[in-house]
Amino acid sequence: MKASIITIGDEILIGQVLDTNSQWVANKLHVLGVELVETVSISDTKEAIVNGLDHAMSIADLIIVTGGLGPTKDDVTKYTLVDYFNDELILYPEVLEDIKERFKKRGIHFSDLNKSQAMLPKKATILPNKLGTAAGMWFEEQGKIIISLPGVPFEMKGLIDAEVLPRLKQIGGFPSQAYQTYVLYGVGESNAAEKLEVFENNLPDFIKLAYLPSPGRLRLRLTGTYQDKLLLENAIQQLGKELMIIFKEESIIEGDLSYVDFIQQYLTTHHQTLALAESCTGGKMASDITEKSGVSKFFLGGVVAYNALLKQNILGVSKNTIDTHTVVSKEVAKEMVLGIQKITGADYAIATTGNAGPTTDNTNEEVGIVFIAIATQNQVIVERFNFGQPREKVIEQAKNKAFEMLSKEILKNQ
Amino acid sequence: MKASIITIGDEILIGQVLDTNSQWVANKLHVLGVELVETVSISDTKEAIVNGLDHAMSIADLIIVTGGLGPTKDDVTKYTLVDYFNDELILYPEVLEDIKERFKKRGIHFSDLNKSQAMLPKKATILPNKLGTAAGMWFEEQGKIIISLPGVPFEMKGLIDAEVLPRLKQIGGFPSQAYQTYVLYGVGESNAAEKLEVFENNLPDFIKLAYLPSPGRLRLRLTGTYQDKLLLENAIQQLGKELMIIFKEESIIEGDLSYVDFIQQYLTTHHQTLALAESCTGGKMASDITEKSGVSKFFLGGVVAYNALLKQNILGVSKNTIDTHTVVSKEVAKEMVLGIQKITGADYAIATTGNAGPTTDNTNEEVGIVFIAIATQNQVIVERFNFGQPREKVIEQAKNKAFEMLSKEILKNQ
Repeated sequence: MKASIITIGDEILIGQVLDTNSQWVANKLHVLGVELVETVSISDTKEAIVNGLDHAMSIADLIIVTGGLGPTKDDVTKYTLVDYFNDELILYPEVLEDIKERFKKRGIHFSDLNKSQAMLPKKATILPNKLGTAAGMWFEEQGKIIISLPGVPFEMKGLIDAEVLPRLKQIGGFPSQAYQTYVLYGVGESNAAEKLEVFENNLPDFIKLAYLPSPGRLRLRLTGTYQDKLLLENAIQQLGKELMIIFKEESIIEGDLSYVDFIQQYLTTHHQTLALAESCTGGKMASDITEKSGVSKFFLGGVVAYNALLKQNILGVSKNTIDTHTVVSKEVAKEMVLGIQKITGADYAIATTGNAGPTTDNTNEEVGIVFIAIATQNQVIVERFNFGQPREKVIEQAKNKAFEMLSKEILKNQ
Repeated sequence: MKASIITIGDEILIGQVLDTNSQWVANKLHVLGVELVETVSISDTKEAIVNGLDHAMSIADLIIVTGGLGPTKDDVTKYTLVDYFNDELILYPEVLEDIKERFKKRGIHFSDLNKSQAMLPKKATILPNKLGTAAGMWFEEQGKIIISLPGVPFEMKGLIDAEVLPRLKQIGGFPSQAYQTYVLYGVGESNAAEKLEVFENNLPDFIKLAYLPSPGRLRLRLTGTYQDKLLLENAIQQLGKELMIIFKEESIIEGDLSYVDFIQQYLTTHHQTLALAESCTGGKMASDITEKSGVSKFFLGGVVAYNALLKQNILGVSKNTIDTHTVVSKEVAKEMVLGIQKITGADYAIATTGNAGPTTDNTNEEVGIVFIAIATQNQVIVERFNFGQPREKVIEQAKNKAFEMLSKEILKNQ
């Protein structure tokens, strides 16, 4: 089964909103074994939706449309689908009761506009939305399945999990899909490809190798689609072992491990702890760690010492050091990392201080300069970097580099 | 000029990677006055690329393709474009020299595979990539412009800014585009739509009104496209004034202001400060604040007190309170917020403590329960919420709710 996702909304096309729905649905379809051939974002107009549907119907068997189901004039998805499939809107009394009930509970005035949310296509199977007023709609037309869902992320996700996936599973018959990722450190894309020439030429035709380069690391991904799940997984596992052997001289890790994943895995296994003292990264490092579950086993916490006074009052950086070297300096980074290690008793600590920009305050260093300090159980390492601009890139790169530096120190001591 | 963006890469279609390139490009095109009609993500195969190009050529005058330009076998964009436009690859010696020079500087071995990066289409204008080995390509075929760029975000962005936008500006003749957003608090989508019935019916045909609902707030966006920039901007401004009058009884703010924007604007103007004590939000609040520039004027910093010991050692939460009520309690939230306010001397403080899940540690409360405390100059407010699951939603909603609570306290005191 081939699938297409259509996201409807001008806010995406003018760059006001980042579409995160498509990735979420893509991952769910992948796990189910549905091959996603295209994701498309289009405008909130009848013309664009008809055009998008025409194209999707020509390349996919399953089309998931999100967005444009609100009660207001700018939302035209439902009306367009009804015309497209020569259907008509009828009142679904049970949907109306649900909506009225919801409004009553929340003490909100129920208006005629809300009533329009219970007018739904006659031919569609209605998917009840427990988290909002826009019901999902499941059409079967011309041998294809077309599903329309609200664009509000948590409503869409709720409907996919509760209504769409169970129905798709019942249809069944999907081939298995599987992938495994390996992360290589310090090997460039072309150098890796040279080493993999024979490996690539011998790949079975149902398995693909992809190169996903990013600064300082290269991910290799083996992807396969096959009816026999066991055979597919065995084949990928076997090829993965070959990869581990080919790169045994380099630093290679199995799994789509980010540096944070690696740090979590290692410190948890070794019953060691980490604490952070963040200035220019402003909580981004802590936030990246705590978005994963189970991190309380190794992550103690940290201080976002944005203001110089917090560096002194909480981390114990000396006023003299700040006055002599300014807050963006090797010396302050060192005192910050030792300070947080001391207060928390952590085995490892990271500190960042820098000028994220666009302007600087009372420092000797230019915009983009960041000092990163790593404290292990027996030493402190401080490095200076120039991450340029813009601000978001400085924060992102400082965070990645800091996690990379810590990972390398951990690997050294292994 | 109508545009289409095509993103190439299986990693997007299997949900492994979130496409952030499209939004970035969409915003640049919008500012330039180019109407983006579609963004599409497709697979790394010749068939998918040809199909995507066929469709894009049928609806757009400008097609920006990103991804699939690496030197490895899985990247086929360049070869597909050359076939598609009946072109051929030739060696561009100056590109080859550039690549060799880059490898030499970085001390990396130069291989034949890298040489292939200097083999480029004869008919295309080559756009030099100063940040990587994959050059950009500018084709003009069948009266359309087709631009191929690498998928690595910073390389793509560098090429758009340095090469693509200046060339598009030279072509010129774009109509002006403009938009303005207004944020309404505490008014539902359908209630707002009722109040706006006359307003909507009287909108000029070159201006659209969109409703962008999210929990607790509703954004209204006026978007227009018109040749005369001044007239367009005046029209939107005038309509915006009408909106402000229609909702003068409610809480409405001009601009695409998030709660964080509002807090920054208010506290900066009033020379007041904010500090945070985050447990379950794990640095996400600090990170959301510090990703904006200029925040050092009001944001002092905070403590990510993930571990109970940090709550005691840094924030001064009493061991007795934790033992009696557990860390996820009203009492601990209150001591946390008073603790951070005391250490930092901030005018306002926020504290969060909760069970983000998926499991809980030694607390009386179930997964999803979060306590949020707000300290102003003369009081402390603590509220208990159940944000359910999954973990990411708990963190996101706790963060949003905390910023909302602070905004409301600020508005009350205004």
